Amino acid sequence: MEDPGPAGRQTRKNVVAVVGGGLVGALNACFFAKRGFHVEVFETREDIRTAKTVRGRSINLALSLRGRQALKHVGLEDKIVSKGIPMNARMIHSLSGKQSPIPYGRKGQYILSVDRANLNKELLTEAETYPNTKLNFDHKLQDWSSETGLMTFVRSDGSRSQVQADLIVGCDGAFSAVRKQFLRRSRFNYSQTYIPHGYKELTMPPRDGEFAMKPNFLHIWPRNTFMMIALPNMDKTFTCTLFMPFEDFEKITTGDEVIEFFRKHFPDAIPLIGADALRTDYFRLPAQAMVSVKCSPYHIQDRCVLMGDAAHAVVPFYGQGMNAGFEDCIVFDDIMNQFNEDFSSVLPEYSRVRVPDDHAIADLAMYNYVEMRAHVNSKWFLFRKRVDNLLHFLMPKTIIPLYTMVTFTRTRYHEAVQRWHWQQKVINLGLLLGAVGAAAGGSYLLVKNPPNINRILVHAEHIRSKLVSLKTS
Amino acid sequence: MEDPGPAGRQTRKNVVAVVGGGLVGALNACFFAKRGFHVEVFETREDIRTAKTVRGRSINLALSLRGRQALKHVGLEDKIVSKGIPMNARMIHSLSGKQSPIPYGRKGQYILSVDRANLNKELLTEAETYPNTKLNFDHKLQDWSSETGLMTFVRSDGSRSQVQADLIVGCDGAFSAVRKQFLRRSRFNYSQTYIPHGYKELTMPPRDGEFAMKPNFLHIWPRNTFMMIALPNMDKTFTCTLFMPFEDFEKITTGDEVIEFFRKHFPDAIPLIGADALRTDYFRLPAQAMVSVKCSPYHIQDRCVLMGDAAHAVVPFYGQGMNAGFEDCIVFDDIMNQFNEDFSSVLPEYSRVRVPDDHAIADLAMYNYVEMRAHVNSKWFLFRKRVDNLLHFLMPKTIIPLYTMVTFTRTRYHEAVQRWHWQQKVINLGLLLGAVGAAAGGSYLLVKNPPNINRILVHAEHIRSKLVSLKTS
Repeated sequence: MEDPGPAGRQTRKNVVAVVGGGLVGALNACFFAKRGFHVEVFETREDIRTAKTVRGRSINLALSLRGRQALKHVGLEDKIVSKGIPMNARMIHSLSGKQSPIPYGRKGQYILSVDRANLNKELLTEAETYPNTKLNFDHKLQDWSSETGLMTFVRSDGSRSQVQADLIVGCDGAFSAVRKQFLRRSRFNYSQTYIPHGYKELTMPPRDGEFAMKPNFLHIWPRNTFMMIALPNMDKTFTCTLFMPFEDFEKITTGDEVIEFFRKHFPDAIPLIGADALRTDYFRLPAQAMVSVKCSPYHIQDRCVLMGDAAHAVVPFYGQGMNAGFEDCIVFDDIMNQFNEDFSSVLPEYSRVRVPDDHAIADLAMYNYVEMRAHVNSKWFLFRKRVDNLLHFLMPKTIIPLYTMVTFTRTRYHEAVQRWHWQQKVINLGLLLGAVGAAAGGSYLLVKNPPNINRILVHAEHIRSKLVSLKTS
Repeated sequence: MEDPGPAGRQTRKNVVAVVGGGLVGALNACFFAKRGFHVEVFETREDIRTAKTVRGRSINLALSLRGRQALKHVGLEDKIVSKGIPMNARMIHSLSGKQSPIPYGRKGQYILSVDRANLNKELLTEAETYPNTKLNFDHKLQDWSSETGLMTFVRSDGSRSQVQADLIVGCDGAFSAVRKQFLRRSRFNYSQTYIPHGYKELTMPPRDGEFAMKPNFLHIWPRNTFMMIALPNMDKTFTCTLFMPFEDFEKITTGDEVIEFFRKHFPDAIPLIGADALRTDYFRLPAQAMVSVKCSPYHIQDRCVLMGDAAHAVVPFYGQGMNAGFEDCIVFDDIMNQFNEDFSSVLPEYSRVRVPDDHAIADLAMYNYVEMRAHVNSKWFLFRKRVDNLLHFLMPKTIIPLYTMVTFTRTRYHEAVQRWHWQQKVINLGLLLGAVGAAAGGSYLLVKNPPNINRILVHAEHIRSKLVSLKTS
């Protein structure tokens, strides 16, 4: 559908209320404004562009193709990309301090480290450029009716206001107030799962005015039950995030214990962060919890729809939380075209199409939560990554690594998972046939001699144990 | 711990508020009253013993060992059992009207069909016999504080009252108001899953003053995507419950369509229920939803604990919903003995011990939701049931069917599941070794002749296809 142009836009009367002025809310406001709706954004917090302190949430995020496509739709891609730092590969830090890169994809494929606060500010400013959009800060949703679309907001001075909307778009994050109304209804499926790990953020300052480590990498210190990662920032600092079970965080109570812990597990990071900073920064904030939220359906009648973290908070281990939320906006927009903006058709279709994809990425992120900590430094993992990349190089259209499908294409998440399962079977079968071929070669020699079942069994056991040792190393 | 006797009881001052006067709430009130606590029960509805109409929920329930043990603890087992109808076996109704019994366990093992309303009334009356217990009806919990234990109730006339308790026990069912406070807290895991099926209840009247079908059975009409069951009542009626996807319920809109549907799928039930009754009763109520609720932990500090459906609503396909809720009371009671009624130790221990068991029974009930509809009438299912029962007969302490462990023992649910997985492996290995033994016999003959790999493969394929055809028939 072509843009009807400014004149066409002005004739529309429908009011769309976007609840939440975070990343997905602000972007979605642009999407709806572009279509000519009268858009009202309601955000609980004050305007982060003028606020003195910004509370909560992680500092930087990994932007990849899905998110970029959504930004492109509202003309912001180049601006945001120019303020991001490309990361071409993971950089694995071993206990001995050895660093080994594992590329994310083919040459030229990278993800971008972007600053959450800056991105949010840019999106809010962009939304405000539409004359048919109004941003309302310090508006906390207290209640709303799915029958009438009437919402009640409360402000920090205690005053209340009521607003009516034709469509309410819940982009108010993992602890969504809009979603509470869904939970009161029958046949709404919902789950929230906290993982046993929490996280703490630490800053690694620049060294002699330059990045303290190679900047174009996502640095990872995988240590089985826990893990640290570091992403580069524009100011040449790195934001380090330590992931660890809450009970382990609780064991560390003094600055000396912090240093002792780092000396044992991340010795190369101590001089880079600085021992003194480490002693104090570690205790600045308590460890933060991480939750995975899944629900279904995403809509109530033709009145309300959930998007972003409000619909599907994911744990941060696939770098897709923001990207999935941004892609929600594209998917919704496509369906708006398809059904000519008729909410009574658009909303059910959006639930039908998007739920399986968002559930798939939530599951993948949870799967990676285990894989990143435990397998990234195993020989089997590296072997399989190399096999995948080799096969992708040989058969670029047949074998596509899962990470590539998720990060560098817009293949639907659930289809990427299905395809991955299929590929895994084919590759494992290939490896098995290779092993069987080797065994058959051996067997041919045995047939020349009197058949001896024991020798064949020993032979098979030998192959099996080799595979097992490779897998568990 | 021995009962301190009436004198000992009176000296206690602690107030326990049981929110919910349904089955688990009323039983739990007896457990706490027996320990000498001052017990206050708060129930939203009016007293069902004096109410004119009783709303909602299924009419009869299957009582088995776990529930009976809990009733025994408060001296009610014999009374309730005398008003129940023993069911020794499932009675499978085929489409042709053929009836085949499948026993629940060994001779003498049975489950009991009991009337929900009567059981609830008996429990409330029993709770009232304790002088230290007070029942408060028409008290709907509006809010409560986990810091102070202060609860606010609202009555149907709009009046409010506040009550403070040392311990708040949430027994207020699948849609628990107590649980809402848990959902506001960090690191509370929660899921609610609605299955695509709904249910409708129909009554099968007596015939010539007698049961219309054999009374000592749980009658089942398994029809793959849907299913009907019937449980006997003391008044010689049967309560039939039809389980079907909501979308199929919605397709039936006229009395004629009801009859057509029954003629196609449950022809033998039409004369038993009566065509005229069927036409009207079917539309008396809309299809009811079924939800599975899991959460963790079950407690907040030393102040509040969830039990029964509030902690773990299950789908009704293992007949363990009430039994699991009643067993909660025994488990909590045992831990109270173990930790000398110190809530700050009892509550975390209760969560630690009980969560895995309640999650296991919720999963099993969901598993049976598929199995009961689809497999009960397959030859493989009957074959495996017979193998299980035979092995149980031969090795009664080694192989115990899962259904027996769940229904006729107090084996912890999660241990029953673990043991079942282990037994399945052993039995499948046994069946496989049997097949391999047969193949080896054949192979011995082959060795006498020149080895021919093709003939061996054909032989193996033959065994495999036999097993597959058995499994899918």
